[in-house]
Amino acid sequence: MTLVNANRQILLRARPEGLAGPEHFAESSVPVEQPGPGEALLESLYISIDPAMRTWITENPGYVPSVQIGSVMRAGGVARVLESRIEGLRPGDLVQGRLGWQSHPTLPASALQKLDLSLGTAEDWIGPLGTSALTAYFGMTVVGDIRPGNTVLVSGSAGAVGQIAAQVAKLMHCRVIGIAGGPDKCAFLKEALSLDEALDYKSTDDLAAAIANVADGGIDVFFDNVGGRTLEAAIQNMRVSGRIALCGRISQTTAPVPYGVKNLGLAIGKRIRMQGFIVSDFHDQYSHARAWLAGELASGRLTQRLHILEGLEKAPEGLRMLFTGENFGKLAVKISH
Amino acid sequence: MTLVNANRQILLRARPEGLAGPEHFAESSVPVEQPGPGEALLESLYISIDPAMRTWITENPGYVPSVQIGSVMRAGGVARVLESRIEGLRPGDLVQGRLGWQSHPTLPASALQKLDLSLGTAEDWIGPLGTSALTAYFGMTVVGDIRPGNTVLVSGSAGAVGQIAAQVAKLMHCRVIGIAGGPDKCAFLKEALSLDEALDYKSTDDLAAAIANVADGGIDVFFDNVGGRTLEAAIQNMRVSGRIALCGRISQTTAPVPYGVKNLGLAIGKRIRMQGFIVSDFHDQYSHARAWLAGELASGRLTQRLHILEGLEKAPEGLRMLFTGENFGKLAVKISH
Repeated sequence: MTLVNANRQILLRARPEGLAGPEHFAESSVPVEQPGPGEALLESLYISIDPAMRTWITENPGYVPSVQIGSVMRAGGVARVLESRIEGLRPGDLVQGRLGWQSHPTLPASALQKLDLSLGTAEDWIGPLGTSALTAYFGMTVVGDIRPGNTVLVSGSAGAVGQIAAQVAKLMHCRVIGIAGGPDKCAFLKEALSLDEALDYKSTDDLAAAIANVADGGIDVFFDNVGGRTLEAAIQNMRVSGRIALCGRISQTTAPVPYGVKNLGLAIGKRIRMQGFIVSDFHDQYSHARAWLAGELASGRLTQRLHILEGLEKAPEGLRMLFTGENFGKLAVKISH
Repeated sequence: MTLVNANRQILLRARPEGLAGPEHFAESSVPVEQPGPGEALLESLYISIDPAMRTWITENPGYVPSVQIGSVMRAGGVARVLESRIEGLRPGDLVQGRLGWQSHPTLPASALQKLDLSLGTAEDWIGPLGTSALTAYFGMTVVGDIRPGNTVLVSGSAGAVGQIAAQVAKLMHCRVIGIAGGPDKCAFLKEALSLDEALDYKSTDDLAAAIANVADGGIDVFFDNVGGRTLEAAIQNMRVSGRIALCGRISQTTAPVPYGVKNLGLAIGKRIRMQGFIVSDFHDQYSHARAWLAGELASGRLTQRLHILEGLEKAPEGLRMLFTGENFGKLAVKISH
């Protein structure tokens, strides 16, 4: 028996055109659902806010089902078990899973994974051990196929995935150039993440020239979170046999007119490989990746700046911030301690 | 001693903007050069006219040195040996090599390869055993990584590389859709090459919809010779885990304003792999590819339509035709019998 009666939820109210924000969501409250066999009642601690969520609320996201109007918004997060009818899960245990935007979800075992707190704290499991960190790890090592000594370019480098992607490349002995918006983020890239170069896309009219200026002959691997003009500027600077890991396209997700990339022809002579990927394709390799990330985290060589908003009701505003660049670090909503 | 005195040549006179044609070249005649040690004097039989040649005469082709103004135009072809100071090459032997646009080149052994006439005739070595056929073979099998049952789309499918690429996919048990310009080329694709579907890009305003209409759920492998809008239309129709072999971009080579591809973001959720390539990257695998092509040729299952122009002086005009789509088949200039 729990003392909690209400499960606060945030529901999708309308499909946005362009930016998503509070106007597209509605708050609601329903009685908590007592767990049936194989289920647990949870108290949400952190809910992750990710760019992919903007895609999930479109009519046809393509690779996952769309979130339906009137449904709880889909989201991953970390929660504490309040009541459990799942073997091996006890009250007080921490789990991660597809919580949705709700304070007290009741979920089946298949949607949950018990956290190994020997690897990191609950916050670490939202940040450098979470899904965005795994995305960075596989995108850089497998898709980007980085090699020691490579020159590696990361767009959205102060963001959730970009921070980790850049650090993975540094830790694997690459020279790393980060792209971010504004002097504060660029200072963070150089000082906190020790990147070799940081480019402020907001302060240049010619990003391709700015990359050329620091790329020392060209880019071997480009990890792209941004798309559009940034992708075009990177293609211009790729070395022969360069690899481009297409992870995100945050500049294009809400753009009214998509940007046309004009220099794909360069990919022929340069033998560029561009590869789109989704982290869940690597599901069977998560544990070795997490072990590596946890080791670097424990040694102090890996870090992640989080941007935490307080309160479930902030989630829609958080989703908007991702696309205006107002967040500074991996964005999450803190719901309970 | 040879009875030939003059080597007719065609030199690059000016770098074109847009289409290249006769106005950018000049005819010349020089005395034939007697072969030194390790060289042979040749009589050119066929010279291949390929889209890449338009790139070679730009200021900065990127992957090969530029042809200099006043130099003999670079080209591959098939020739007969007139005099030889190369071990293993005798007068009357046929060779292929980097002949250039000239009637009687004198070339070193490193630029030549003796033809194995057990695999095919001199014309076959220009066509289905030549470099454009190898390009098709490696692009389809290695870069495109076709599998039996795949739905495969080929742009420029009536062209030199496209014809072979489409047939390689058919022979490897794929369902093949060809794109070409005009009803004659489309009829050829279906009747002579036995492709499953042929799309006339000139008769549709919406190529993406036309592809969707025949793709039966999507494209697994796209072999692209065209770039631009055609590439965009194909991306729209790719299946999850689809592969795109970027071989050429003939629509873009001479376009005054390059076309911007707007839907690269789809590559993320669809996990599309796009890979540019150059046939010479596969140089150490040419012999097994040629053996396969020769076997299919001998069995009558592989064919190639050639478009032969008569006379060295037609070469510049041939180069122009490639980019207006006036050629119908693999284009070559016949110089001698």
